[in-house]
Amino acid sequence: MGRYQSFDVMDCRDQVAERVAALRKLFATHKIDGYLVPRGDEFRGEYVPEHAERLAYITGFTGSWGLSLILKDSADLYIDSRYKIQAPEQTDTDIFDVICVPEISLDTRLAEKIGQNHRIGFDPMLFSRKEIARFEKTGAIFVPVSENLIDLSHGEALPEIRSEILIHPIEIAGASFTEKKKQIIDILQKKNCDALFIVLPENICWLLNLRGNDVPHTPFILSRAIVTIEGKFYWYVGKERVTPALKEHLGPDVICRDSDDIFADIKMFHNQKILYDPIDTAFAIEKALQDNGVKLISDDDPILLLKAIKNNAEQAATRKAHIRDAVAMIKFAHWFSTQQQDFTEIDAVKQLEDFRSEAPELKDISFDTISGSGANGAIVHYRVSHKSDKIIAESDLFLCDSGGQYLDGTTDITRVFIRGKATAEQKTRYTQVLKGHLAVARALFPIGTTGAVLDVLARAPLWQAGIDFGHGTGHGVGLYLSVHEGPQGISSRSKVKLEPGMLLSNEPGYYKAGEFGIRIENVELIVHKGIPEDGEKNMLGFETLTLVPYERKLIDKSLLSREEIHQIDTYHQRISDSVIPLLDAERASFLKDQCAPL
Amino acid sequence: MGRYQSFDVMDCRDQVAERVAALRKLFATHKIDGYLVPRGDEFRGEYVPEHAERLAYITGFTGSWGLSLILKDSADLYIDSRYKIQAPEQTDTDIFDVICVPEISLDTRLAEKIGQNHRIGFDPMLFSRKEIARFEKTGAIFVPVSENLIDLSHGEALPEIRSEILIHPIEIAGASFTEKKKQIIDILQKKNCDALFIVLPENICWLLNLRGNDVPHTPFILSRAIVTIEGKFYWYVGKERVTPALKEHLGPDVICRDSDDIFADIKMFHNQKILYDPIDTAFAIEKALQDNGVKLISDDDPILLLKAIKNNAEQAATRKAHIRDAVAMIKFAHWFSTQQQDFTEIDAVKQLEDFRSEAPELKDISFDTISGSGANGAIVHYRVSHKSDKIIAESDLFLCDSGGQYLDGTTDITRVFIRGKATAEQKTRYTQVLKGHLAVARALFPIGTTGAVLDVLARAPLWQAGIDFGHGTGHGVGLYLSVHEGPQGISSRSKVKLEPGMLLSNEPGYYKAGEFGIRIENVELIVHKGIPEDGEKNMLGFETLTLVPYERKLIDKSLLSREEIHQIDTYHQRISDSVIPLLDAERASFLKDQCAPL
Repeated sequence: MGRYQSFDVMDCRDQVAERVAALRKLFATHKIDGYLVPRGDEFRGEYVPEHAERLAYITGFTGSWGLSLILKDSADLYIDSRYKIQAPEQTDTDIFDVICVPEISLDTRLAEKIGQNHRIGFDPMLFSRKEIARFEKTGAIFVPVSENLIDLSHGEALPEIRSEILIHPIEIAGASFTEKKKQIIDILQKKNCDALFIVLPENICWLLNLRGNDVPHTPFILSRAIVTIEGKFYWYVGKERVTPALKEHLGPDVICRDSDDIFADIKMFHNQKILYDPIDTAFAIEKALQDNGVKLISDDDPILLLKAIKNNAEQAATRKAHIRDAVAMIKFAHWFSTQQQDFTEIDAVKQLEDFRSEAPELKDISFDTISGSGANGAIVHYRVSHKSDKIIAESDLFLCDSGGQYLDGTTDITRVFIRGKATAEQKTRYTQVLKGHLAVARALFPIGTTGAVLDVLARAPLWQAGIDFGHGTGHGVGLYLSVHEGPQGISSRSKVKLEPGMLLSNEPGYYKAGEFGIRIENVELIVHKGIPEDGEKNMLGFETLTLVPYERKLIDKSLLSREEIHQIDTYHQRISDSVIPLLDAERASFLKDQCAPL
Repeated sequence: MGRYQSFDVMDCRDQVAERVAALRKLFATHKIDGYLVPRGDEFRGEYVPEHAERLAYITGFTGSWGLSLILKDSADLYIDSRYKIQAPEQTDTDIFDVICVPEISLDTRLAEKIGQNHRIGFDPMLFSRKEIARFEKTGAIFVPVSENLIDLSHGEALPEIRSEILIHPIEIAGASFTEKKKQIIDILQKKNCDALFIVLPENICWLLNLRGNDVPHTPFILSRAIVTIEGKFYWYVGKERVTPALKEHLGPDVICRDSDDIFADIKMFHNQKILYDPIDTAFAIEKALQDNGVKLISDDDPILLLKAIKNNAEQAATRKAHIRDAVAMIKFAHWFSTQQQDFTEIDAVKQLEDFRSEAPELKDISFDTISGSGANGAIVHYRVSHKSDKIIAESDLFLCDSGGQYLDGTTDITRVFIRGKATAEQKTRYTQVLKGHLAVARALFPIGTTGAVLDVLARAPLWQAGIDFGHGTGHGVGLYLSVHEGPQGISSRSKVKLEPGMLLSNEPGYYKAGEFGIRIENVELIVHKGIPEDGEKNMLGFETLTLVPYERKLIDKSLLSREEIHQIDTYHQRISDSVIPLLDAERASFLKDQCAPL
């Protein structure tokens, strides 16, 4: 069986000095005093293809967010608090000062490091104009350098590898490209715009009902597009990638182009109004649009919201994916609780991947499994490697955050397990987190409510105990797309109105540094709940898609209200009804025990 | 005994046509096509002195918010949803179209009504530049007219009546003018400003430790001021109002000036930086500052936050005021429950005012008592008049929202009473509202939390039942100043961080139109709660200052959790301990019954 997750961590710390020196040699030719290297690629996704791992190449650091400023005599690596331990281990700290933002403000640090009138180069496909405008507050001059200097310094850069393009079945998508395009055209008409520039690959995948495999764990086709009010779809994907059969399928309105053709095509839109998202549009493209006299109307890409609201077919599909995922998770829970021999965090990841892979619909895992026992569980974004791997002790809490990419849905679930007997403290904390998780799951809320409003429901039970967690309560979830998908969320920053059909994770936690981590995560579908009995207003609420029992060994029933106990029992009964018929006798019996009333 | 509340409602509906005609006659002279009349006066408070009740004069409408646009051939009265019934009753609807905003957007309606290049007059002391800038989006020309045209059309406008200025005792204020001024100077230094322009009278009262009686129910001295970084205090109050004794008390740094002297004095600040609040600064003053080359630094008046955080002396004083107010309220509750004869809403108001007036510290009521029985209780801002007054039936819920202005504190409390036996529905709704109120009262929250975050705690129990309430959960409260005082609050709009020493009302409700209203309101003081047992973080929370029991007849205990029952019993025990010693035997016995464990 193939492996979706690798446990090797790239180690190029010893080469960092040499690589930085090679980069610096290019400064004189380009008349720059420094160079900025972001973690992202030009498609701005969470995952980037191997050839675009430029931050890792030059710094050694492999985290999912980072930025580097390399000057002639010094260099900074900016990371966030998730990577405070990892980054200094991976990079060469003789070369790079590791700066944790926002502990130290990025703006302040940049202003300190960069002198007025210094010339700092950047790749104009990897930054937006907005990002550069922020950096320009330092007083320095930011110089777009069209060739990527990391690639240039590389000598033998990895080739771009592009995957096969696959048609996403209409039975799952629920709406055709033509129907979706009609929605976009209606929006363009309302906004009095001539065209929409689509910068995010997932928005193109959704609109065309296509999937690919250009990056790990998310079935993206890395490409850009322009859709016009007349219904033409200019797709900057690489002409050679589109097979005749696919071209036939897409029809005559889709014009397949090479990636760089966009710069020539922009001329067609002279004097026309193009809707675009200034947050994610590359500096080079925004500049080309402006230079060619295009009238830019800035707004969120309307596809973000259209894609977030899953239609009936998508809802039905993702329900199936979650039942299938529940089977794998329950097999794993059974395996975990019945192992007689010692096993490690990596063993657990492999075993879980094997159980998921039993389903032919599985295409990938949806992200690298967080498999953290004991103190490793307290590292919110822990990624196990051969180096960090350890045996999961009887007394350890084991935090497992994982998901599958099935053809019909993307899953994301966190459960905490324990092999032995839990301590009173572990049970208290687990139950407090569970109370927050349950409060979100059972919440009813009026139409128009944002995720910012609901966030405190998850925290209030923890606050009463004097604890908290340092991440949002929930993120949007894609459908066989990215496991993290906006615009909705449950956090203080989530100002988007929640609408029926949206998917959200519900994942409060508690992390005791050096000891253990707890997170309980389900995926919830926002649904109409109608008017409650004797009530007056139509309310929205959640249908929990994830169908895996909570860890009974960790629940302190005395801390739960009657309502909470009833809520857990009802959920467990639903799991039992849905999943037991899909299990063999031994596992069915195991699940029945896990789902017995508290 | 004097009466603080009047039950007469001005009725000038029959004169509206004639008054509007008189106003329109002035249009030609001033070369305008229309005129804007706001409800507020130049001091922007909730209450305005009688001579400044210009909106009521011209429209007949007496609500606390409104705006009128009078054109040559038509006229609009803009109100909010509170006044949808009252406004059309009070105004002459042949003259005024009553428009409820935001049901109809004010911007849209103004744009429809006002033609491009129309000239609309306004009094530049009654609008800010920000407000006018918003109106200017209609494309019309807004013309400041220095004489107020309502006053001019009036012929015999009421004189401005100004009250005696009184010294607010230092034992209550807890900090002297000099100490407070030092805080302001520190802020000016930090912000690199030369002076602060103070536009709100309550901020001046706080800073100078003075009180007056220029408007009903709030002890304001209507005035403006400029405080400089050198410590000079230019006070635009009216020189004749400041007695020699008061002048002696204030010391040499306070320069007393007439109201209009500000326009001459502004010249002194040429090329200096003045901190000012563009939200509330009059158009005429902002223009004068700009015309005289003053450098304007716009920000919230720093006094708002300084004033909101009550010091130890203020906290001790306001606790005393609340105990005194509790005595009056409990006497009232006893009276209410023991009356054998019929009595009306007005009788109840008078009786409550009499009980409050027994305390020599009472200076006024803090607002017109909302005394609503049955269907009147469902009108959120109901104000009883001789016309609306009715007998409180045995089966009526009676909603009473009232407060006192004591020398040592401003109170605000809402309780719901019933003379007879409550229905199951009434009990259910009361208990649901109580659950929201209790959830806020017991909440612990980390430093940095805003009122916007807490708001949902009051609503969640109502949302679960499919009901809601259409107002914020809480507002800030002054100390022998305005009963509504910013910047903090508990509502979706409250983005100010909550800090120990702030006062907040906690007042969720439920309103069944045509049947009954419920609101339960206490004043809460934000306090440090320390680290909860076995917790990790220092938390903030509330100390409830209001000490009046909830209505036992309306509590359905079966809907409460053990935690909620314990919370109520603990609160009632506190009330019993604090207030019983202050009551005669009969009332003490009554209170003891009301405070018995549920």
